[in-house]
Amino acid sequence: METEISSLGEFGLIDRLTAELPKLNDSTIKSVGDDAAVIRYESKRDVLVSTDMLLEGIHFDLTYVPLKHLGYKAAVVNFSDIYAMNGTPRQLVVGLGVSTRFTVEHLEELYAGLRLACEVYGVDLVGGDTTASRAGLVISATVIGDVEEGKAVHRSGAKPTDLICVSGDLGAAYMGLQLLEREKAASAGQKDFVPDFSGKEYLVERQLKPEARRDIIKELADAGITPTSMIDVSDGLSSELMHLCKASKTGCRVYEDRIPIDYQTAVMAEELNMNLVTAAMNGGEDYELLFTVPLTAHEAVSQLKGVRVIGHMSPEDQGCALIGRNGEELPLKAQGFTHL
Amino acid sequence: METEISSLGEFGLIDRLTAELPKLNDSTIKSVGDDAAVIRYESKRDVLVSTDMLLEGIHFDLTYVPLKHLGYKAAVVNFSDIYAMNGTPRQLVVGLGVSTRFTVEHLEELYAGLRLACEVYGVDLVGGDTTASRAGLVISATVIGDVEEGKAVHRSGAKPTDLICVSGDLGAAYMGLQLLEREKAASAGQKDFVPDFSGKEYLVERQLKPEARRDIIKELADAGITPTSMIDVSDGLSSELMHLCKASKTGCRVYEDRIPIDYQTAVMAEELNMNLVTAAMNGGEDYELLFTVPLTAHEAVSQLKGVRVIGHMSPEDQGCALIGRNGEELPLKAQGFTHL
Repeated sequence: METEISSLGEFGLIDRLTAELPKLNDSTIKSVGDDAAVIRYESKRDVLVSTDMLLEGIHFDLTYVPLKHLGYKAAVVNFSDIYAMNGTPRQLVVGLGVSTRFTVEHLEELYAGLRLACEVYGVDLVGGDTTASRAGLVISATVIGDVEEGKAVHRSGAKPTDLICVSGDLGAAYMGLQLLEREKAASAGQKDFVPDFSGKEYLVERQLKPEARRDIIKELADAGITPTSMIDVSDGLSSELMHLCKASKTGCRVYEDRIPIDYQTAVMAEELNMNLVTAAMNGGEDYELLFTVPLTAHEAVSQLKGVRVIGHMSPEDQGCALIGRNGEELPLKAQGFTHL
Repeated sequence: METEISSLGEFGLIDRLTAELPKLNDSTIKSVGDDAAVIRYESKRDVLVSTDMLLEGIHFDLTYVPLKHLGYKAAVVNFSDIYAMNGTPRQLVVGLGVSTRFTVEHLEELYAGLRLACEVYGVDLVGGDTTASRAGLVISATVIGDVEEGKAVHRSGAKPTDLICVSGDLGAAYMGLQLLEREKAASAGQKDFVPDFSGKEYLVERQLKPEARRDIIKELADAGITPTSMIDVSDGLSSELMHLCKASKTGCRVYEDRIPIDYQTAVMAEELNMNLVTAAMNGGEDYELLFTVPLTAHEAVSQLKGVRVIGHMSPEDQGCALIGRNGEELPLKAQGFTHL
């Protein structure tokens, strides 16, 4: 089935893509179908807003990224920003730019991913903008969430003695990308190429279908731990540590042997002859939570499932460093985008 | 001065573009520089959210659109959506995709326009996402606003006897686009071409520097008039009328001789041998407010400056029609985008 978008027109397309959207939050008063969505939070709630843009050829390659996964990821990376503020994502608006090579069915696949992510995380898709593009697929998602008044956790609250914690493991999404790129290169010119992901399924999943760590926010709340600062790991641990330190006016020491790395990530790094620690520190797209807690929370945080203490903050003048296995100090470097 | 973006890096660029942003709203608690912006509205306020995407080659042509104007317009078209809900825009987040041909100075120009629009309309620029693009310039803006709880004006509240009103005049932005395109074509291959806009300045201004009708929202409030339905005219009067009618389950009758058209628009239509009414009905990008009021508000609304009654709603089964100067009925057609 291939339905040309022009056969539906803009408004027909929007009607089809947004048909029968569920309403998961009481705060969603008016969803798709007006000039703006209307949201009504309970009193004593702060509103959180974050936005992310994904561009074809920069953030994703449709050769190996299924559209449904892409939709899922576009939503989840936004939700992750709200969790990183200690909040709950509630509403999502999505801007789409689509070129003529996309059919209605393609966009339905993309929306299936957006809808699934919204269902899984309890978020309402409340609006958007769909437009033509001369430049491949453009996805811009903005998430709105809430948090108890004054309870947002910022990047700036860490003290020089705080412990640094990270959830899950790092570097796997980056290794997944290397693997997908390798298989893409291997497939060039071959008709019935079957990519080989055996034993590396976790890496592919981390790249194609990341999850936001809602569970960690719940664990922290259940344990009565409020992080002093928090950020999600999108650009790589190294960058994010430097963001926390800059905002909190601290330095930091993280220990190489404490960085959580999955077995598959290590195997892949060896296969590709890449430095494993570099991949874990700078790979990015992990969407894990990096946060700090007071020293007094050491025991409590040590008991959390899927959280590891990887180091500690330090006075600002000591700078930011990774301590190697032999005690050597390596200054951290921020990455950010390298496309420009 | 031409500074390559790569010389600053992502974080340096963001720091430079967002330096010294003013805080114009008490509701802005935490602006740029965290995973999400934090907003705290007074109690008994509803939150409004709207998003718009502008893509190079589709929505704008940098041959004749200055970047500062583009930034201004990207913000204002979003503000317009909030006014169209009877609300007040308060915060803006902006996603930017930029290709390597843009310099830091280019982006500063764009931001100067965004900042100016925010200053003029009292909105805080609280966040964004800046990324590389392979596809020219991509601007995605999402605005957050507020309105007294339950006082948002939707598209759906019109009754079959309501009067239809529109602010300002229509078709000028579309004619401005035709003029700019004509001068662009005329300039092809010429070195020192000077475009001729004399006597048509209003058309160029309507296209390049539209304004949102905050003044009309204030006038309505001051006069104690609450529209029963409202929408802003972005895709053309015809489309917007059909949106109101569809959402309100009504038909409508608008009168050709009541459509407000500026003298320059009429002159330009004649020069180009285009149908003036078609331009006014379908041109789009007017960013005027189209709204309905009860019949009982006829006198009050007639006294508003810059507002004209152009027709009335009707029972749904009568459909949507334009009544020509000789009394003939022309069914309305929705436009929407025609790029796909």
